[in-house]
Amino acid sequence: MKFPSLTILLTCLPLISFADPLPSWTDSTSKNRIVAFVETVTDPTHADYVTPAERIAVFDNDGTLWAEQPVYFQFIFAMDRLRELAEQDPSILTSPALKAAVEGDIETILQGGHDALIEVVNASHTGTSVEDFQTAVANWLDTARHPETNLPYDRMTYQPMVELLRYLRDEGFKTYIVSGGGLHFMRVFAEDAYGIPPEQVLGTYGETAYDSSTGITKTTGIAFVDDKEGKPVNIERTIGRRPILAGGNSDGDFAMLEWTTAGDGPRLGVLVHHTDGEREWAYDRESPIGRLVDGLDKGPDMGWVIVDMANDWSRIYTGAN
Amino acid sequence: MKFPSLTILLTCLPLISFADPLPSWTDSTSKNRIVAFVETVTDPTHADYVTPAERIAVFDNDGTLWAEQPVYFQFIFAMDRLRELAEQDPSILTSPALKAAVEGDIETILQGGHDALIEVVNASHTGTSVEDFQTAVANWLDTARHPETNLPYDRMTYQPMVELLRYLRDEGFKTYIVSGGGLHFMRVFAEDAYGIPPEQVLGTYGETAYDSSTGITKTTGIAFVDDKEGKPVNIERTIGRRPILAGGNSDGDFAMLEWTTAGDGPRLGVLVHHTDGEREWAYDRESPIGRLVDGLDKGPDMGWVIVDMANDWSRIYTGAN
Repeated sequence: MKFPSLTILLTCLPLISFADPLPSWTDSTSKNRIVAFVETVTDPTHADYVTPAERIAVFDNDGTLWAEQPVYFQFIFAMDRLRELAEQDPSILTSPALKAAVEGDIETILQGGHDALIEVVNASHTGTSVEDFQTAVANWLDTARHPETNLPYDRMTYQPMVELLRYLRDEGFKTYIVSGGGLHFMRVFAEDAYGIPPEQVLGTYGETAYDSSTGITKTTGIAFVDDKEGKPVNIERTIGRRPILAGGNSDGDFAMLEWTTAGDGPRLGVLVHHTDGEREWAYDRESPIGRLVDGLDKGPDMGWVIVDMANDWSRIYTGAN
Repeated sequence: MKFPSLTILLTCLPLISFADPLPSWTDSTSKNRIVAFVETVTDPTHADYVTPAERIAVFDNDGTLWAEQPVYFQFIFAMDRLRELAEQDPSILTSPALKAAVEGDIETILQGGHDALIEVVNASHTGTSVEDFQTAVANWLDTARHPETNLPYDRMTYQPMVELLRYLRDEGFKTYIVSGGGLHFMRVFAEDAYGIPPEQVLGTYGETAYDSSTGITKTTGIAFVDDKEGKPVNIERTIGRRPILAGGNSDGDFAMLEWTTAGDGPRLGVLVHHTDGEREWAYDRESPIGRLVDGLDKGPDMGWVIVDMANDWSRIYTGAN
């Protein structure tokens, strides 16, 4: 029977203890407040200690864990997939919105508002088994490139947030995605990109049906919209515990952060503010995508950390230095 | 630095290896098939090895993990709670079904069918915060006793199934409840009774709403019925993986077991057949509660284990020897 040398153990100890868990964050107030929070809730001698079972952390996806400009990536997938489907059967393009979609004419679709978006998503996301749909998403991620960065979309995850997720898990947190994006879409890459398994991905979902011959298929219509007040509702329903940490970037995340931070005991809300027009995109109050007004106006008074992307992050994308 | 004595470790080893993980099961085909399945999927040298992440096991609750006669325990809670609420405000008893409920007249309610049941559940389960509702459930469990066994309801869990759940978790499975019963109701006792945390309890749920001043409240109406085809739909939606083991006891579980066992690789379906009229209740094809026809007719051909409660279980309730 042999045990690792005590010398080796002691030699490694300082490295383990003092390695920076968030190397892509600058030495900012944001980083320091996040680390202080994690150290507090994981310290068994501290009055604000939280047991591992209650260390639930929830994060929005679009604009919080990966980029969302010029439009939600899932919507670019929807247009690409609709184009593919229309090549086989052009008669499916039954409306101006669908015709605009296959031409990549995002402006026309955005002018059609919510209804036009839903129409494009319905036409491109239904009528297949969940399995076939997810194969299509995986193939798209393998081949599609972002028009401005030329990166694969799943390499446009924010490296500082990927580090934060890992840090939280290393400290006994369970990390969840709670996003307005599609459940079945996100599950395809969440495990590789973020280390988040399918059962910890919550999102908007369409109707599905079970049949013994075809299994689970995506039928028409949206069953649940995981946005705004829907986020706390979905968290309570699915997880059954109030998180102690929530991260978001838009007013669609306001209710989730509000509910999280209103609970008893130690709580942390984190808002990613898109301030970096050079390395990413700068947008907030006036943006049709990721609009952020309430969070900026009320978040600081509720003690939320407002992450200044330009100054607090030394690196943006996982896929680029 | 001190290590446990090697002699002690080696002395304990045979005990650990050969301890029976299912002591309340007789030495039956059912038990042997379950153990053989678990040993196969956890053996890394076996062709049918399954990685821990995919070791998902799902179980119905009423009639599978605890008793369900003479009527679902949640319904007895609903009647008791309605009586309490009516004592404060008798005007809430607006229909014959509600009046029958506060008198404990189950027969009249069952004659009213599904609509009457829903009416009683709606009147007794809504209009409060989730937190207050769950406090009411906890208080009820502390004081209410089953009319025939005189046991607290949460001591009428089936000890053989409690052992099976623990055995599966010890072997790296993640155990879930997937029940027609109410999500918020079950979460109150699932952790203590079964070792299943809130986020692994799936069930029927009512509409809920988030408001910054009141948090999450139970509003009127049922949002999702977790029964029959709804079970595979809910599992896919919430867990995102097809289980490799499913347990149930009625035709409400048929689709869940069918979907589970139709997947590729090693799969196991387990049906609890209520054959024990002496220690429990004997019922199947003709019972209004826990009706079992399809499972008995088609399950054996699909390789499902049909547990003969009278012969396969040496003990029934956790709360009684």
